[in-house]
Amino acid sequence: MSNRVYNFAAGPAVMPEPVLLQAAQELFCHGDDGMSVMEMSHRSAMYEKIIFGAEEDLRRLMNIPSNYKVLFLQGGASLQFYMAPLNLYRKSFSADYIDTGSWTQKGMVEAKKIGNVRIVASSKADNFTYIPSFTQDMLDPEADFLYIVTNNTIYGTRYTAIPDSLPGVPLVGDASSNILSEEIDINKFGVLFFGAQKNVGPAGLTVVIIREDLLGFCPETAPTMLNYSVMAKNDSMFNTPPTYAIYMAGLVFRWMLENGGVPAMEKVNNEKAAMLYDCIDRCSLYTGTVRPCDRSLMNATFVLPTEELNNKFVAEAAERGLVNLKGHRSVGGIRASIYNAMPVAGVQALVNFMEEFDRANR
Amino acid sequence: MSNRVYNFAAGPAVMPEPVLLQAAQELFCHGDDGMSVMEMSHRSAMYEKIIFGAEEDLRRLMNIPSNYKVLFLQGGASLQFYMAPLNLYRKSFSADYIDTGSWTQKGMVEAKKIGNVRIVASSKADNFTYIPSFTQDMLDPEADFLYIVTNNTIYGTRYTAIPDSLPGVPLVGDASSNILSEEIDINKFGVLFFGAQKNVGPAGLTVVIIREDLLGFCPETAPTMLNYSVMAKNDSMFNTPPTYAIYMAGLVFRWMLENGGVPAMEKVNNEKAAMLYDCIDRCSLYTGTVRPCDRSLMNATFVLPTEELNNKFVAEAAERGLVNLKGHRSVGGIRASIYNAMPVAGVQALVNFMEEFDRANR
Repeated sequence: MSNRVYNFAAGPAVMPEPVLLQAAQELFCHGDDGMSVMEMSHRSAMYEKIIFGAEEDLRRLMNIPSNYKVLFLQGGASLQFYMAPLNLYRKSFSADYIDTGSWTQKGMVEAKKIGNVRIVASSKADNFTYIPSFTQDMLDPEADFLYIVTNNTIYGTRYTAIPDSLPGVPLVGDASSNILSEEIDINKFGVLFFGAQKNVGPAGLTVVIIREDLLGFCPETAPTMLNYSVMAKNDSMFNTPPTYAIYMAGLVFRWMLENGGVPAMEKVNNEKAAMLYDCIDRCSLYTGTVRPCDRSLMNATFVLPTEELNNKFVAEAAERGLVNLKGHRSVGGIRASIYNAMPVAGVQALVNFMEEFDRANR
Repeated sequence: MSNRVYNFAAGPAVMPEPVLLQAAQELFCHGDDGMSVMEMSHRSAMYEKIIFGAEEDLRRLMNIPSNYKVLFLQGGASLQFYMAPLNLYRKSFSADYIDTGSWTQKGMVEAKKIGNVRIVASSKADNFTYIPSFTQDMLDPEADFLYIVTNNTIYGTRYTAIPDSLPGVPLVGDASSNILSEEIDINKFGVLFFGAQKNVGPAGLTVVIIREDLLGFCPETAPTMLNYSVMAKNDSMFNTPPTYAIYMAGLVFRWMLENGGVPAMEKVNNEKAAMLYDCIDRCSLYTGTVRPCDRSLMNATFVLPTEELNNKFVAEAAERGLVNLKGHRSVGGIRASIYNAMPVAGVQALVNFMEEFDRANR
């Protein structure tokens, strides 16, 4: 019926097969609603069930308390790079950033258009191969926020523990590439945002989780569409939200709940990552690019001894139906993204190939 | 297999059944690509075929010359209300607006955050029941742009002829609710934008067509994501675009090309609108709310003599599978949105019901 490959793309990325099958089945006509979800008015009762159901399921998955709002927005994390500072610069107009690579750097470019940015710690000198540590005394107690990227898709690093911000300084997290992959305490964050296209659903949906006391600081002169308070007051429906992407995200949330929620995902993600990193460390041909204690569960990066071997690896893997393994140009080599929806069998197939390739080429 | 209704929603709205059937069929696995379109990296060759194919088909449908860029963005027309002025205020920082209702008014709110707004003409005093006329001497020759909404979804009015702007003053058009419904000369516009969720595809995609000489005026301090030039230079892929919504739009464009393109749509739209307006004018129970010469081909608005009858009409229609006919609260009464994808049979079913309801209740 179909020849699906194992897709190791960094995002948009693999989605759960049961979710795709359900979506395919109800695309033409959703249940008894008489129409496709794509055709539903966002103001209709039938669509409200979908969007509010998705929010409720996400709240369950992440144990989001009632003093946090969940917003379904557009524009990707890239728009949040500006929107979060726009809404959070409010007293000192200075913010602390922990620099862990491209995505924090793009974030800082946007923040600097509005306020001051202090880099507290950075692993730039080592091409972002680790998460830089910092101590509380390095932080600015007057900062309007502290900003981190919880997982770095390009470099393959992640925070294994979420750092503490100083009292009164909200922590802002970009969790686009590891949201819902392991348990996380939302109470540590003032704002947590993520693009959907890695662990949640199709591209075109951005979720923002924001503590209510941080609403209300956006300047009146800012674009209405970039004002968190307006979006919160209108339940994400100030204008037409990306209705179908939200429906797909809802199906993914439901699939997760039916399969043990975040703890179960985390357990399998640890197993999948261990299979892959063990293979990298065991085979002489592969060198992991990240300090082992900071390795991502979602994006495993490694290099082969020569560019020629990197290319041969990618080409031969693709012939076996293991696709999108080429590393980002900033790191080179290989990147295998193994999000929640990547089955263990996919990682096993990759590991089998890696062992064979190692034997044949070392 | 399914009990699809006739959906007269103003947007998100009815989509072409052949498009939905094709999307359902290839949702799980797209052709020989080994994955769903939702799972494709936006940087992959397989996805580039989809996005560049969609652009090419839109260019054919609208005869867009090569000195115009086509951008696939997010945030809806509501974000364009700010983004267009942000990019187009460049000399006088004054703009001329023709006020035809809610959507121009929301546009003016955003524009005023950046520059000056002059209302050239307005039908506000008559609850926007017509398109106000204006002469060239009423326009500001120094204006940075002239702004119109080509079709007014809420009030059911439209420009039957696109007005001329003064030499050197680009015309900006919001065509969200009548794009591709009738032939339009893109050369009359500096910028034409539209949300997808009425005549093009699922919500979450906004298309901007912009003449190249208008690129390059966005201030450096503006959010990168709101800079037309950045989006144009990166072929709409500065960040991850709404990949699946673009694919769906591409299927709609292809469906249109296979069915005679815009001229064929316009012919059928004229026939559908005539069926409906003739019925409104013929039956004593219905009163059209718009000056006949300004009637929309896409959104037909009318009222019954009492609020009770309006409600009864909506309820009885829904029992027949004719849904989402309640008018917007600004106008009241009934609104039947009959976009390209609404088949003639759907309008015929509505007209049959209207005649019966008229006989039973007049």
